[in-house]
Amino acid sequence: MANKSLNKAQEALLRLIRVHAYSSAFNVLYKMQPADLALIFNYLTNAEKEWFIKSIIKNRKLPEVISELEEENTAQFLSLITETELIDILETIHPDDAADLLPLLGVEKQQEILQKLSKPQQRAISQLLGFAPDTAGGIMTTDFLALPETITSSQAITALKKIEEKPEVFYVYVIDEHQQLVGVLSFKELVMAQKDKKLNEIMHPDPICIETNKSQEEASSDIAKYNLLALPVIDENHRLIGQITVDDAIDVLVEGATEDIYHLAGLGKEEHAATSTLTSTKLRSPWLLVNLATAILAAYTISLFEETIAQYVVLAILMPIVASMGGNAGTQSLVVVVRSLALGEIGWRVGLKVVFKEIRVGLLNGIITGLAMGFIAYLWYQNLTLALIIVAAMIANLIIAGLFGAAVPLILRKFNLDPALGSSIFVTTATDVGGFIIFLGLATLLIKVLLP
Amino acid sequence: MANKSLNKAQEALLRLIRVHAYSSAFNVLYKMQPADLALIFNYLTNAEKEWFIKSIIKNRKLPEVISELEEENTAQFLSLITETELIDILETIHPDDAADLLPLLGVEKQQEILQKLSKPQQRAISQLLGFAPDTAGGIMTTDFLALPETITSSQAITALKKIEEKPEVFYVYVIDEHQQLVGVLSFKELVMAQKDKKLNEIMHPDPICIETNKSQEEASSDIAKYNLLALPVIDENHRLIGQITVDDAIDVLVEGATEDIYHLAGLGKEEHAATSTLTSTKLRSPWLLVNLATAILAAYTISLFEETIAQYVVLAILMPIVASMGGNAGTQSLVVVVRSLALGEIGWRVGLKVVFKEIRVGLLNGIITGLAMGFIAYLWYQNLTLALIIVAAMIANLIIAGLFGAAVPLILRKFNLDPALGSSIFVTTATDVGGFIIFLGLATLLIKVLLP
Repeated sequence: MANKSLNKAQEALLRLIRVHAYSSAFNVLYKMQPADLALIFNYLTNAEKEWFIKSIIKNRKLPEVISELEEENTAQFLSLITETELIDILETIHPDDAADLLPLLGVEKQQEILQKLSKPQQRAISQLLGFAPDTAGGIMTTDFLALPETITSSQAITALKKIEEKPEVFYVYVIDEHQQLVGVLSFKELVMAQKDKKLNEIMHPDPICIETNKSQEEASSDIAKYNLLALPVIDENHRLIGQITVDDAIDVLVEGATEDIYHLAGLGKEEHAATSTLTSTKLRSPWLLVNLATAILAAYTISLFEETIAQYVVLAILMPIVASMGGNAGTQSLVVVVRSLALGEIGWRVGLKVVFKEIRVGLLNGIITGLAMGFIAYLWYQNLTLALIIVAAMIANLIIAGLFGAAVPLILRKFNLDPALGSSIFVTTATDVGGFIIFLGLATLLIKVLLP
Repeated sequence: MANKSLNKAQEALLRLIRVHAYSSAFNVLYKMQPADLALIFNYLTNAEKEWFIKSIIKNRKLPEVISELEEENTAQFLSLITETELIDILETIHPDDAADLLPLLGVEKQQEILQKLSKPQQRAISQLLGFAPDTAGGIMTTDFLALPETITSSQAITALKKIEEKPEVFYVYVIDEHQQLVGVLSFKELVMAQKDKKLNEIMHPDPICIETNKSQEEASSDIAKYNLLALPVIDENHRLIGQITVDDAIDVLVEGATEDIYHLAGLGKEEHAATSTLTSTKLRSPWLLVNLATAILAAYTISLFEETIAQYVVLAILMPIVASMGGNAGTQSLVVVVRSLALGEIGWRVGLKVVFKEIRVGLLNGIITGLAMGFIAYLWYQNLTLALIIVAAMIANLIIAGLFGAAVPLILRKFNLDPALGSSIFVTTATDVGGFIIFLGLATLLIKVLLP
């Protein structure tokens, strides 16, 4: 894991730790950001990790550092601290971060530790553990600021001054007597309002909000689309129960995009450039073996035309061109449709329109590249029949590419599956098998005219 | 462009416009979000667009709607409003949004309109037009709140109340007498502080900031990594001159990821599922023609072994398997390295380590999938030499895949080129040509042993 690029402070800290200059190291560490400290953890030996953890406890940065750790490091981190320290952390951090940590301890230990926490924190964490991790409820925090609609702005400010300081206020939410969300205010708007105005006179009514069971992607897209700093989360009775903050939305959106690319290429989201050779091999080989199966299917298709190829070997030379062009055009259609689905630009309802459009693009690009290839094939082998066969095969295969490139992700989405996962295998299998059957099939039908 | 999925309010508005129920339509439009209104623009006829623009002017949503429009719609939008309306918009919107709009008018018109704006807005926009659009300076806004370090918190609040209201305060920045950035505060911290404390006693000193000439990607990654709502931008003398807000950072990060996927698949970032057939064809055909050229190169490689294939046609059946597996493994390596570069997880410095790792993964996966294929080939054709040749060719080609998949994006980055753009062509050409040469080359060398 020693591959990631480090900034100057990180390199200085590592050098000082290496030469055991711990008091200087502590001074450097003291000024560093939690996210930068979390990355350092990858580079330390076990002995150094113990010093590191003690230092960030002394420095009161432990909770923030732990929520910035990569998932694979968090479990090890937890094993290096005492139970008292763990409970202390779980009391201090946001309930949503605590709800992410607890499952790493295992079911039994999770229950045991949960019992030892203060009642309010226990309740908040238990509630969050009840939501699926990829829903709005699963990524929300229960830390938010809500005030009744009937108090005045000066009463509100007095009330806020009494609350123990929270790290950041994204919005001040306004609720009615049933805890239902009725409005929103920025902290600045609250302070700048006339003192005797009631909150329901100065708030923005009917704020954008989301229900707990909606997907984390939908929640994050709303935050991005409407330029929000946080999105309030409501239960089935429109009661305010949490908020999703913009920093978590960024993580969902960026990881979602990376996941799309990875899935299209047959990679799991766990992989980085710094993942070990053995882990990478293990993660990638299943997908390569599935690809091997589809490649064998394509080879079997070719074997059906063995006799034709034996009669005219030039076919073996040109056939990979038809398959390769189909694969490329299919990937183009696939990627456009997958990203448009992910960004919420299209849904299943308009699917047929998108499929027909991709077929038309396939037809046109098939004509363009097919004619170019037909011309080159004619120059190369001086055989008009061969040239016409490759033109026809390329047009047909690029239509197949458009059809499968658009239809496969739309159908996966229709069945609530990830449109990116596995779709490239379907598409390239279709264009490989389709390309070989059409090209070699036409050649077999026309073999008498074809033979020079 | 009529393909995007709409929400209920958008569909209601469109229906009302279609039946010319303009006063009901206005009531619906009145409650809608700018981002949702901007999307509606795609669906309107020219006559409807004029009504639409008049309505959002009346509704005072024009500036917000215009900054949410897709780039291809903005120029048309601008052509439909009067010069007075345009100047009014440019005075109202943030200078950074204005600096995005002005270049769409053309150089001459841009100068003419700029002259007619108020001096402060003119100065702010001109300054922004001086920065390259993909830098921190190019995406920052010059709207920010900065206060001198020596005033007290109550003086600060009094000062803020005098400033005309701005839409949103992300942070309150603290500057010294040279306009240099020395600290940061949340608005809440300022309000909650004791009245007589000076700002330099309550501020967080030395905040994270960025210089104008740094890339927009670096600025946006910092915002994501350090969970910021905004990132202050400084000039070469450490003077505060702007800030980058989290909503703009999200756009840069998400568009960057989409661009990576698109570039890997040979697509331009302009394309959506809703792009017209002709435009899509035009955008994709150049890349398909480049691919055709590389496919012909691979075909030419095969033609060098025409005689061998004529002697033993089974080679033509199996050779696409070697090429296809290399292409898939190469794409896996390529995608991992491209994303790790984009997310700043690795740099050129650790390049050699990454290349060696991908070669090792290629070797291991080559052994796994090669042995599987060798076994199947032996069962299929009962020819041990053939089986051994395909095992060797697959191992060699998956090593080539790892080498090129890692090295190509790293080299592109080294020369400051986009690691995603065009790299998949290089990699698949290497695995196609490499695979055919090794498999058919070995078969040619061993042809006497190979022939059944």
